[in-house]
Amino acid sequence: MSTFDFGFQDFLACCGSTRFAKEMASASPFPSLHDAVLAARGIWFDMVDVNGWLEAFSAHPQIGKLPSSAPGKDNTHAQWSKGEQSTAFATATNTSLQELSDWNAKYREKFGFVFLICASGRSTAEILAELKKRYSNRHIEEFQNAANEQMKITELRLAKLFSTRAGTVSASEE
Amino acid sequence: MSTFDFGFQDFLACCGSTRFAKEMASASPFPSLHDAVLAARGIWFDMVDVNGWLEAFSAHPQIGKLPSSAPGKDNTHAQWSKGEQSTAFATATNTSLQELSDWNAKYREKFGFVFLICASGRSTAEILAELKKRYSNRHIEEFQNAANEQMKITELRLAKLFSTRAGTVSASEE
Repeated sequence: MSTFDFGFQDFLACCGSTRFAKEMASASPFPSLHDAVLAARGIWFDMVDVNGWLEAFSAHPQIGKLPSSAPGKDNTHAQWSKGEQSTAFATATNTSLQELSDWNAKYREKFGFVFLICASGRSTAEILAELKKRYSNRHIEEFQNAANEQMKITELRLAKLFSTRAGTVSASEE
Repeated sequence: MSTFDFGFQDFLACCGSTRFAKEMASASPFPSLHDAVLAARGIWFDMVDVNGWLEAFSAHPQIGKLPSSAPGKDNTHAQWSKGEQSTAFATATNTSLQELSDWNAKYREKFGFVFLICASGRSTAEILAELKKRYSNRHIEEFQNAANEQMKITELRLAKLFSTRAGTVSASEE
């Protein structure tokens, strides 16, 4: 078996569209992370339909909130989401978290899905500024922006997935 | 009461998004068809979210098929849909209807919603050519095209709605 052979649940933790996860699992194993990312882009933008995009968006916690993790459940997604928001949490105050929460609610009320941003390395202030800027967009434009951000998040998560496996392999080879 | 005061069900027959119908009913009465069309464009493109677009798309029969009408049900939508497709039905052969049906299935399988086109005055051959051309589009592009076609259909239906009322009023005024 190839080093980079992953299954449905692994890919679902990278992107919450079941179609995406199925297609990635079918295309697996990948010779490298680079190949997996190229396949992921093709699947996300050309095969997953708009219902699948909404399905993937709904798998995310509201930014500034942590997803719930449960015993006996696959918590990979929850742990990754926490890691991706670590800069935001480190730079947050009660006031800025409240403002983020209020703007998130406004955004969701307008667009019908959660505000999505690749939060890695971004402060709460940066995220809030981006949210306010994007709030005035038209629905279709913001739908595309959310899909692009989802792809960035997916790429980061694929890298984590591959690095975990690479670590396991090199440890077992020692 | 104004001549052009319509309710939720009237507007839902024009466009199957409940948000659209609610907002139009709130904004009613309209001084003219022109004002109603301007309001409808604002509501459809700026207020109704992507879930509402999908809701409206799902209210349409597959092109080349008639929606079911039932006794005791509001059949306005079904009757209008039949009228809008009258040129298509008049120019159809069994072969062309079968080809249209096959391509519709392919389209729905790819995009996750029914192929939408303002069919008024278009032959089956024209509709089929347009379907084949649009099939190669990206998901987001086709989502926008479908929303634009929905708006054209809504405008035609608003015109029918207003002309019916105008007829009733002039008859009662005779």
